[in-house]
Amino acid sequence: MNTISDYKSIIADYIESIEIDKKPDELYQPIRYILSLGGKQIRPVLTLFAAEIFGAAHQKAIYAATAIELFHNFSLIHDDIMDEAPLRRGKETVHHRWDTNTGILSGDAMLILAYQYFENYEPFIFRELAKLFSKTALQVCEGQQLDINFETRNDVSIDEYIQMIDYKTAVLVGAALEMGAIVAEASSKNRQDIYDFGRYLGIAFQLQDDYLDAFGDTETFGKQVGGDILENKKTFLYLKAMKKGNNDEQKELTEWFSTTANNGEEKIKQVKLIFENTKATEDIQTEIRKYTDKAIDILDKLAISDNYKKELRDFSLELMNRTV
Amino acid sequence: MNTISDYKSIIADYIESIEIDKKPDELYQPIRYILSLGGKQIRPVLTLFAAEIFGAAHQKAIYAATAIELFHNFSLIHDDIMDEAPLRRGKETVHHRWDTNTGILSGDAMLILAYQYFENYEPFIFRELAKLFSKTALQVCEGQQLDINFETRNDVSIDEYIQMIDYKTAVLVGAALEMGAIVAEASSKNRQDIYDFGRYLGIAFQLQDDYLDAFGDTETFGKQVGGDILENKKTFLYLKAMKKGNNDEQKELTEWFSTTANNGEEKIKQVKLIFENTKATEDIQTEIRKYTDKAIDILDKLAISDNYKKELRDFSLELMNRTV
Repeated sequence: MNTISDYKSIIADYIESIEIDKKPDELYQPIRYILSLGGKQIRPVLTLFAAEIFGAAHQKAIYAATAIELFHNFSLIHDDIMDEAPLRRGKETVHHRWDTNTGILSGDAMLILAYQYFENYEPFIFRELAKLFSKTALQVCEGQQLDINFETRNDVSIDEYIQMIDYKTAVLVGAALEMGAIVAEASSKNRQDIYDFGRYLGIAFQLQDDYLDAFGDTETFGKQVGGDILENKKTFLYLKAMKKGNNDEQKELTEWFSTTANNGEEKIKQVKLIFENTKATEDIQTEIRKYTDKAIDILDKLAISDNYKKELRDFSLELMNRTV
Repeated sequence: MNTISDYKSIIADYIESIEIDKKPDELYQPIRYILSLGGKQIRPVLTLFAAEIFGAAHQKAIYAATAIELFHNFSLIHDDIMDEAPLRRGKETVHHRWDTNTGILSGDAMLILAYQYFENYEPFIFRELAKLFSKTALQVCEGQQLDINFETRNDVSIDEYIQMIDYKTAVLVGAALEMGAIVAEASSKNRQDIYDFGRYLGIAFQLQDDYLDAFGDTETFGKQVGGDILENKKTFLYLKAMKKGNNDEQKELTEWFSTTANNGEEKIKQVKLIFENTKATEDIQTEIRKYTDKAIDILDKLAISDNYKKELRDFSLELMNRTV
């Protein structure tokens, strides 16, 4: 059995080996660039692993895995334009290194290239993969739109927030796993279960990301700690603190989140204090555990061999205990 | 036999009847908006007609036709952002009516929705349609990038210009026809022929568009006559006039095209004079005829009934003699 860590190098090597020798360079160079930045590549790893779990050689799933990673990078290019983000993975974003138009058009091409990877499969599998891919891709767009809407809304509920991260992040984790199952021609029950497993895991993963953004270790986190706070992002921590805080805490939090203060360090420190005092930090841990448990419950019931279950469980727990 | 004009109302009615009842509205409203603007809908009409030519009921091709029209509109939304165009079909462009981010994200969703329309077909046809679609969509992106590159290049050749309009416009006309043939399960020879017919027709169509942009009738053309000249677009007319003009004409043209002059009317008048004096206007007519003839040559050899040939020929000639 390959371990998840084996698949990490397999997919990294494969994506590194992709040669997009198409013209014009102005269109394809940004695609080569963002792929060269690497990243955690969790999603394609899960595709390969799911294929193996359900009895296919992982080689058969490499194209679906690549499609997922191309799509993920397409969405990063376009999201970074929308968020006006200067940095991605510690390097310049595409629209910063080139310009907005280049980001739009290269992103478009990358989405189409993702679909083309499914052409490596026979018609029936092709259709199943593309169907799941389109459904998921549209949900990711919807999640991004909800995220944009939340910026100007003051009445976002916790449930709405969970739906947003479900669409923006979790469905793609579920789809990555289901695509491995599709390639392996797994039963529809197994497809659904592995999808749900991934989706719960994805929600837990994003909540953990929210937590680390505020409370992660500057040394290891990679992104600027406190970035969400500086951008006044209405994350789970904020929404929970606003809900549970007393009048003073609500007022203070509202004030901090109505400015793009110059005294960023002080803002981060004070907001984090409120997150802790209102026990929003404990609530997010509870929520992360809740979704991790939901994922692992499904895993336990899956009719797959125990060593696969152990590997996926270890991977899930590792994701939740990560510091990066 | 249905005529092309019958299909115009069939596709217009169908697209008008599409209800995208998805949420969030901020994502889908711009899609409903651009579809409501209508347009010539030449491409989907050709898909329906090609399906009938090769023996399928046109109803079977309506989903492929819709996918083509959705893709075309996706590309308009993103191109309008890149070109900073305020108007489309006489109405506000999406990014003007909403904002750039809305244009990017709604465009993305529209591209994905286009792929979803192929899910109405069985696996083999689905795969063929999606393959042709992806190949073509990528060429359209490449054509748009070439167009952008040309803005800052002073050594664009006529051949390069033809390649640009081939990719940006003509391949989609070819693909629209071939998709009808795919749905009708036509032979690969017929698929290739109808594709080539459409591609030549598409080049002729775009050259005619360039001509009308400068010499069309203000009353009927719909867009501002002289728009390309005001934007210093290196169209066939410009490239030919630069090639054939004497030193004075070249110098004058270069000067006009190095400014975004306030005296727009005078610029349009003087540039058009150079186009006429250098006989670039005659050359473009010759080129339009050349590509129309190439298209009709293929048509003549196609093994389809004469009334279909006549209808397609009349349609082609009508496109070339249009004033809008």
